[in-house]
Amino acid sequence: MSLAGELRLIPIPLADEIAPGDALAEKLLHSLRGQRVSLRPGDILVIKHKIVSKAEGGMVDLATIRPSEDSVSWAQKYGLDARVVELALREGRSVVRRKNGVLITETSHGFVCANSGVDVSNVDGGRHALLLPEDPDRSAAQLRRQIKKFTGLAVPIIITDSFGRAWREGLTEVAIGVAGMKPMRDDRGRRDPLGYSLRVSVEAVADELACAAGLVCGKLNRTPACIVRGYRYPTGRGSARDLLRPAGSDLFR
Amino acid sequence: MSLAGELRLIPIPLADEIAPGDALAEKLLHSLRGQRVSLRPGDILVIKHKIVSKAEGGMVDLATIRPSEDSVSWAQKYGLDARVVELALREGRSVVRRKNGVLITETSHGFVCANSGVDVSNVDGGRHALLLPEDPDRSAAQLRRQIKKFTGLAVPIIITDSFGRAWREGLTEVAIGVAGMKPMRDDRGRRDPLGYSLRVSVEAVADELACAAGLVCGKLNRTPACIVRGYRYPTGRGSARDLLRPAGSDLFR
Repeated sequence: MSLAGELRLIPIPLADEIAPGDALAEKLLHSLRGQRVSLRPGDILVIKHKIVSKAEGGMVDLATIRPSEDSVSWAQKYGLDARVVELALREGRSVVRRKNGVLITETSHGFVCANSGVDVSNVDGGRHALLLPEDPDRSAAQLRRQIKKFTGLAVPIIITDSFGRAWREGLTEVAIGVAGMKPMRDDRGRRDPLGYSLRVSVEAVADELACAAGLVCGKLNRTPACIVRGYRYPTGRGSARDLLRPAGSDLFR
Repeated sequence: MSLAGELRLIPIPLADEIAPGDALAEKLLHSLRGQRVSLRPGDILVIKHKIVSKAEGGMVDLATIRPSEDSVSWAQKYGLDARVVELALREGRSVVRRKNGVLITETSHGFVCANSGVDVSNVDGGRHALLLPEDPDRSAAQLRRQIKKFTGLAVPIIITDSFGRAWREGLTEVAIGVAGMKPMRDDRGRRDPLGYSLRVSVEAVADELACAAGLVCGKLNRTPACIVRGYRYPTGRGSARDLLRPAGSDLFR
């Protein structure tokens, strides 16, 4: 039984590894059928980007990367793979910080994260690196259309990755692709129960949904997606770009 | 019916405003009884700091604050309340950034956030400002002991606030006080299903739990707390300080 106002996170495990060209929407729906769970109106589907990138073929054979001298010496200094460093530099449009073996870049999409989001874990034992989806909003919109085709339901889709933060230790999930909802809840101008106007109350709900999903979508339990049920999301068109602070108004790059 | 692996967030609404000296644990348990919900082993209790600060009397009468000339001129320039600016500067142990009307400080606890966490919304219409709890870990530990006294269950407690981030727009909830669990899940050294060691996989689960709770604990719906049910949290002693990156290894202050 669900209580009124309760929110539920329903994991969607996938037994198989995802390969380039795989039909992701069908595989997720197949897993749900196996659990006897049906999508419902109001559900949100949250998906880790790795399976999206894999399905889209966003893998790079590290043997094809010729690192620059600079990448080689920096990688040697910190015990890193120079080819991954090289790839991360290529995938970034600017370097935000590069110090103590940490490389923080701004990606072509505008995300500020470590190594431009280039990842070698959970891929194939270190031979290939996985890139972020080329256009995660577009990937989310495509999945949304496919899910609608099969189920008749147009559910919001959030694609996530694990990013580090300034000032705080540890990674948390963030939304890198959004379709079918607004990623921010804007309460500015509304009044609290005591009549005081809420001044700076823009809540990054897509990132909070990503974090919530991160609790059930484990790296080690082959659960790359989940349903969020019971959350009244901000309706309307939205993009993960809405979550990006323009460099000009950012005090920390 | 709950499915295996499912996670549930159960809101704990409070009808009344919290006043200094209120017995928070009793009020939360009273609300749960009203909903016919019982705490269970494995539950986590997540609580917005505002009711904790209010119960602890962490309110400052703004009429008692004499802002410095500097605070007055800066506040005038950006249409802010000089007394709140003054209080924020007093509550911080250092200023991290101060530009474009935004004041980012490091608080006495070590949190990096806007205005040292000083807040005037949802207090009493702008007469008083609310401070962060003096020692949020201690507040969490006290609540944990009281909940245990009444229910026999030693559940983890997370106290949260809404912080802004570098690079990304919007606020998200973060853990500022933790008792009864480790705030980080450390998968370093474990191997993914393909045998590749997970290199940088420390997950700030207390912050993800805070974000998840943020989805059901609204500013406007008088729901300052919730239960997270079904999450296998990292057991052991922990502190919200574990989430703070030491200034010396932080590339962004």
